[in-house]
Amino acid sequence: MNRKMVFYTCGQMLLLEAVLLLLPVATALIYRESCVLSLLWAMAAALLAGFLIMLVSKPKDTVIYSKEGFVITALTWVMFSAIGALPFVISGEIPSYIDAFFETVSGFTTTGASILTDIESMSKGLLMWRSFTHWVGGMGILVMVMAVAPMTTDRSIHIMRAEMPGPVVGKLVPRARQTAKILYVIYFILTVLEIILLLCGGMNLFEAMIYTFGTAGTGGFGCYGDSMAGFTPYLQWVVTAFMFIFGINFNLYYLALIKRFKAVFSSEELWTYTGIVLISATAIALNVRSMYPTLGEAVRHSAFQVMSIVSTSGFATTDFNLWPDFSRIIIVILMVIGACAGSTAGGLKVSRVIMLFKSVKRELKRMLHPRSVQTVRFEGKPLEDKTISGVCIYFAIYMAIVFTLLLLISWEPFDFETKFTTVLTCFNNVGPGLGAVGPSGNFAGYSDITKLILSVAMLLGRLEIYPMIFALSPSVWTKKS
Amino acid sequence: MNRKMVFYTCGQMLLLEAVLLLLPVATALIYRESCVLSLLWAMAAALLAGFLIMLVSKPKDTVIYSKEGFVITALTWVMFSAIGALPFVISGEIPSYIDAFFETVSGFTTTGASILTDIESMSKGLLMWRSFTHWVGGMGILVMVMAVAPMTTDRSIHIMRAEMPGPVVGKLVPRARQTAKILYVIYFILTVLEIILLLCGGMNLFEAMIYTFGTAGTGGFGCYGDSMAGFTPYLQWVVTAFMFIFGINFNLYYLALIKRFKAVFSSEELWTYTGIVLISATAIALNVRSMYPTLGEAVRHSAFQVMSIVSTSGFATTDFNLWPDFSRIIIVILMVIGACAGSTAGGLKVSRVIMLFKSVKRELKRMLHPRSVQTVRFEGKPLEDKTISGVCIYFAIYMAIVFTLLLLISWEPFDFETKFTTVLTCFNNVGPGLGAVGPSGNFAGYSDITKLILSVAMLLGRLEIYPMIFALSPSVWTKKS
Repeated sequence: MNRKMVFYTCGQMLLLEAVLLLLPVATALIYRESCVLSLLWAMAAALLAGFLIMLVSKPKDTVIYSKEGFVITALTWVMFSAIGALPFVISGEIPSYIDAFFETVSGFTTTGASILTDIESMSKGLLMWRSFTHWVGGMGILVMVMAVAPMTTDRSIHIMRAEMPGPVVGKLVPRARQTAKILYVIYFILTVLEIILLLCGGMNLFEAMIYTFGTAGTGGFGCYGDSMAGFTPYLQWVVTAFMFIFGINFNLYYLALIKRFKAVFSSEELWTYTGIVLISATAIALNVRSMYPTLGEAVRHSAFQVMSIVSTSGFATTDFNLWPDFSRIIIVILMVIGACAGSTAGGLKVSRVIMLFKSVKRELKRMLHPRSVQTVRFEGKPLEDKTISGVCIYFAIYMAIVFTLLLLISWEPFDFETKFTTVLTCFNNVGPGLGAVGPSGNFAGYSDITKLILSVAMLLGRLEIYPMIFALSPSVWTKKS
Repeated sequence: MNRKMVFYTCGQMLLLEAVLLLLPVATALIYRESCVLSLLWAMAAALLAGFLIMLVSKPKDTVIYSKEGFVITALTWVMFSAIGALPFVISGEIPSYIDAFFETVSGFTTTGASILTDIESMSKGLLMWRSFTHWVGGMGILVMVMAVAPMTTDRSIHIMRAEMPGPVVGKLVPRARQTAKILYVIYFILTVLEIILLLCGGMNLFEAMIYTFGTAGTGGFGCYGDSMAGFTPYLQWVVTAFMFIFGINFNLYYLALIKRFKAVFSSEELWTYTGIVLISATAIALNVRSMYPTLGEAVRHSAFQVMSIVSTSGFATTDFNLWPDFSRIIIVILMVIGACAGSTAGGLKVSRVIMLFKSVKRELKRMLHPRSVQTVRFEGKPLEDKTISGVCIYFAIYMAIVFTLLLLISWEPFDFETKFTTVLTCFNNVGPGLGAVGPSGNFAGYSDITKLILSVAMLLGRLEIYPMIFALSPSVWTKKS
């Protein structure tokens, strides 16, 4: 592996983190908060670490392959979280470094699982940083760098492939850098749009930014202990709509921009995603009807919670942990499915679920007519056998990781339901689970070692498993291969 | 589909069920129990139904294809259970037909999940029938017919493939009928051997037969409320050993018989199975050490429970529901894995798990070196891509069914743990689960509709999904295809 190039690129990334910290610094200055110092210290640490790493690992050869792409991605995300946790610790607002690391990983991976028990007591500067990590992590740290700065290597597609979620990563335009720019422009426009709509509903700019970052990255961090329960129905519906919007494959927005509407409206993934949302929201609304005064309220809470979970955001307007088990199990299934590939959401992704169902259908046909040839078509194109088997294997490794994580945290003093949904919610980057980690609970009750395990789970989920596995494989690090 | 041939074969099968009922009839006569009448009525019903079906569906064309094989298998199993439930209802020992149907499906599918709350009050004749269904279902109803009677069709391999568990079904010898005979002879010899060893340990013949049938079929029905907790360590160890033995692929016994020992000892599946058992038993023994007076006792209970679950028998010598979660989650994982393909056990099967792991490994290699060609080898032979993708797809459909079943029974008034393990234990044909369906609980608390859903789950698990799906597909039943 081209180790120097791996570290050099990671060093460059840290410089970006220093720049990103300017937003919370500005927030802290506006609100005249003392946490500004802790943010500046973190900036200094990012700059120092970045320059030092670049200094010692100046590469002669800038060529990278997919292997380097995976490792750069994994390392960057870990380093971003390690340094991003510093302001919380230095300011004393989250005294334990492991807690702060968990919270920051949860931020960048857009999980939204929190160890905070009193959000309202946090300073606004740090809350801004906490939510901004969602926005940065949502579309991807490295994709962001690609969009704003020329990369040292011209093979940045390998990095893009490693960071972008979904079974197939296509470039919108021939150059990866151009694709990254387009994605971020769309992301930025949608973000501004949501902020404006939330401001219209009576939020102040701080709140509007916090909740928009949480929606855009499909993260779920807010600035109130009751998440979004205290806001007006208008604001809740706006966020519901934007959770849906940010769960759609961004390629479709690009296709809409270049006026290829037919391609947009014939997207199988979009229709399946919409269908899943509508069916789940209807089923839950009927199931919880008697718990709310009006049908309208039942529909609003059902729609909000379904969108929040399927987009893996994790906001809440009501405590779905108190719902009947039928609704709660739909919630668990939605956690696993997630939203569309190429969006900012987590989970398996709708396109993978579609491909799994189609390959099951093909297998059934093949068993009845062993000699016939069956092709699986997705989004109008025939799928390669390699892609299908890739998706099936991804699912197998996904389930193996779920059970391994469950075993690793099995000794914690919570019930089975809590532990099982803790694993699912962290690994799928959702945020809340059921039981003690439900919308009204938090992750503070877990031990330090479990918090680290869950941090790894969140990174595994966000980067779709492979980059983390490669970064942890000694054989990948050898010079030769 | 050749519908006449399908029904005709099912009719033939019912005649066999009448013959099988002779064993419990004999038992009831020896113990002079009044339940003998109910057994005779069921025999009459089986004979009548069998002859009537054969009369109205005499086929002109005896050729069958894989489609017919699947449907014959599914129908036979359902009809066997429907008629096998009659003695319980007629005698009044299980007043509700749905309860009796659940119990009989649980018997034939070798699940061992019970709705009985007072086993000791049952008559010996019916207990013998209940346990004998395990023995019949273990190696397969249709395989049994193939072994003892000439089939109308010479394409019985299609039936064998549909009924035998595992990813690849091979014939030991060129003729399917000969293979069936060999399998049943081995099965019979091992059964007699266990009965003798249990008799030596002080069981009476009735008990020895009951517990041997439960072990041989990896079912788990016994004749005491505490399963095997009241027996001596010697008897518990004998059953532990035989649960291991009946979890091994029967092909290996045949290979041993024809002195191909090298092939036996190089079996990857056998070694992996042994490894899983040893590692799980050791981990659990250490974890529960403090709950038992001596290390020896902890090891005995750990080994027994691990073998009981991984072989999907479901006997118990201690209430593993009271163990710490670490051990309980190992138990849940073992439920999913199951024992070897080609054995009488349920679950995913060890060979599928090995193939899944190997294909994950290949996928990882392929991601790093996209242009290299990687072959997956299993048991010394390279695996076809079709087999690998078949296994991966089987796993996907398996998980989809787990979540669907969970949703279908979600409204029951039990906790998440109970419902989740109810689905796993029924679908994997294990028997006990955790929570209210733990070793000291039972399935009597579920509603009738859930008992029917769980009966379908047990059949889906035992027949490895596909036959049941095809039997329920209207398109399969059309004349043309």
